[in-house]
Amino acid sequence: MKVIKSVDELREYVAGLNGSIGLVPTMGALHEGHMSLIKRAVSESKNVIVSIFVNPTQFLPDEDLHKYPRKEEADIKICELCGASAVFMPSADDMYFENEPCVIAPPKFASILEGKTRPGHFDGVLRVLTKLFNLTKANRAYFGKKDAQQLLIVKNMVKTMFLNIEIIACEIIRESDGLALSSRNAYLKEIDKCNALRLSRSLFNASNMIKNGETDAAKIKESMLNTLEPLEVDYVAIVDREFNEISNIKLTDTIILVAAKVGNTRLIDNIWI
Amino acid sequence: MKVIKSVDELREYVAGLNGSIGLVPTMGALHEGHMSLIKRAVSESKNVIVSIFVNPTQFLPDEDLHKYPRKEEADIKICELCGASAVFMPSADDMYFENEPCVIAPPKFASILEGKTRPGHFDGVLRVLTKLFNLTKANRAYFGKKDAQQLLIVKNMVKTMFLNIEIIACEIIRESDGLALSSRNAYLKEIDKCNALRLSRSLFNASNMIKNGETDAAKIKESMLNTLEPLEVDYVAIVDREFNEISNIKLTDTIILVAAKVGNTRLIDNIWI
Repeated sequence: MKVIKSVDELREYVAGLNGSIGLVPTMGALHEGHMSLIKRAVSESKNVIVSIFVNPTQFLPDEDLHKYPRKEEADIKICELCGASAVFMPSADDMYFENEPCVIAPPKFASILEGKTRPGHFDGVLRVLTKLFNLTKANRAYFGKKDAQQLLIVKNMVKTMFLNIEIIACEIIRESDGLALSSRNAYLKEIDKCNALRLSRSLFNASNMIKNGETDAAKIKESMLNTLEPLEVDYVAIVDREFNEISNIKLTDTIILVAAKVGNTRLIDNIWI
Repeated sequence: MKVIKSVDELREYVAGLNGSIGLVPTMGALHEGHMSLIKRAVSESKNVIVSIFVNPTQFLPDEDLHKYPRKEEADIKICELCGASAVFMPSADDMYFENEPCVIAPPKFASILEGKTRPGHFDGVLRVLTKLFNLTKANRAYFGKKDAQQLLIVKNMVKTMFLNIEIIACEIIRESDGLALSSRNAYLKEIDKCNALRLSRSLFNASNMIKNGETDAAKIKESMLNTLEPLEVDYVAIVDREFNEISNIKLTDTIILVAAKVGNTRLIDNIWI
């Protein structure tokens, strides 16, 4: 496996590739969620590039850019074990220029939920992905459903800007106790861990209510909020696949999302119905 | 030559191509300036696609979107005569979606000169070009130096967003009397034509002053403004190739630009020193 640390080196590497290219864009601190993406990519594409880049433009000024977990050596090892062909770990100076265009995500999708709490976040995501898609010339890129809103916005960009790449959505990977894997789980103190489970538990409860015939979104939300107590809830949302809020559950066209603070750590989770 | 009127049809066409692809993006009403771009593209690329699309997002609300000259049949004939492989003439509904990202050109380059008078213009240019570059999978795209600031901003996007396309800058084509060719020249009334020559004349004068040893940008500007009288001048600018204003002429690194209204028609012109 090749470890690539500059844009020029990546370009040279990509120019020499034959066959399909899969990209797994990450911010490092890799866990089994990322591993499932890499393995899926390896099973579908001849060449798999994992990018590891803590992208500054998707962090708000007061967010955790500088303390975001960085585990370079372990990450390289994980990529190798999963069968990646190359890891791309550029510096911010190599990826960004003093004067360059920026990409603004469509407000309908980017101003709600995550975008409401993190204005500008999705603009930074789209900007760096545009760069990564162009640099790697990937035929496919792999994203986890955990960042459901990101997935929607990336798919929208691919469709509307006519990008020549296929976006593959991969299932959320969870701890055996239900907690959705996230690099930010590393921030959780021992005392938070039990409370962190309230997110997934609220979603599983919602799923069970629906299985038992409940279709009223308001009732489901109310029950979820009870499960989430005493967490500081940012949002509980029940939307269709286009992220329109819905008041009645539509089977195969519903996503239920939750964001809440556990201690000082903001966590998100969701479930697709 | 193939005439392609939809995005789907273009995708199918491009998927079937072998060899290099050259793109000449235009808004139609083709003249000898466009013809020189197409011919250059034909000489360098196996396949040449000319896009003809009066792009709504690059017009300001009070600009001439609806009266911009449209000459579909003549344009197709011209592309065929110049040896293009295909003409792509999509509808706005086919190119744009209700919800999609937008691209914001870097303020350093896009807020001055043309961008000052036409705020948002270059954002629309970059948005449509991103779409056209992706759809055509072009290896090269051809632009006239007449839109010098556009050329700078497009080259900046290609460099900073790592687009896999080469931008080819082509010389300005002029009438025998010096007037730079422009689709908007069609708006000029007979009485305006003599005054329209003041733009190119002011640039030729500037060029002569420099040939005769003048290096003081202020003196050159003053002389140009005299030549431009009595036109309503929007700007006269002397910049380096990065569009920084300069006070002393640097040979091989200077562009002199002018924008002025002739009757009701706003014209631009420039000369590269």
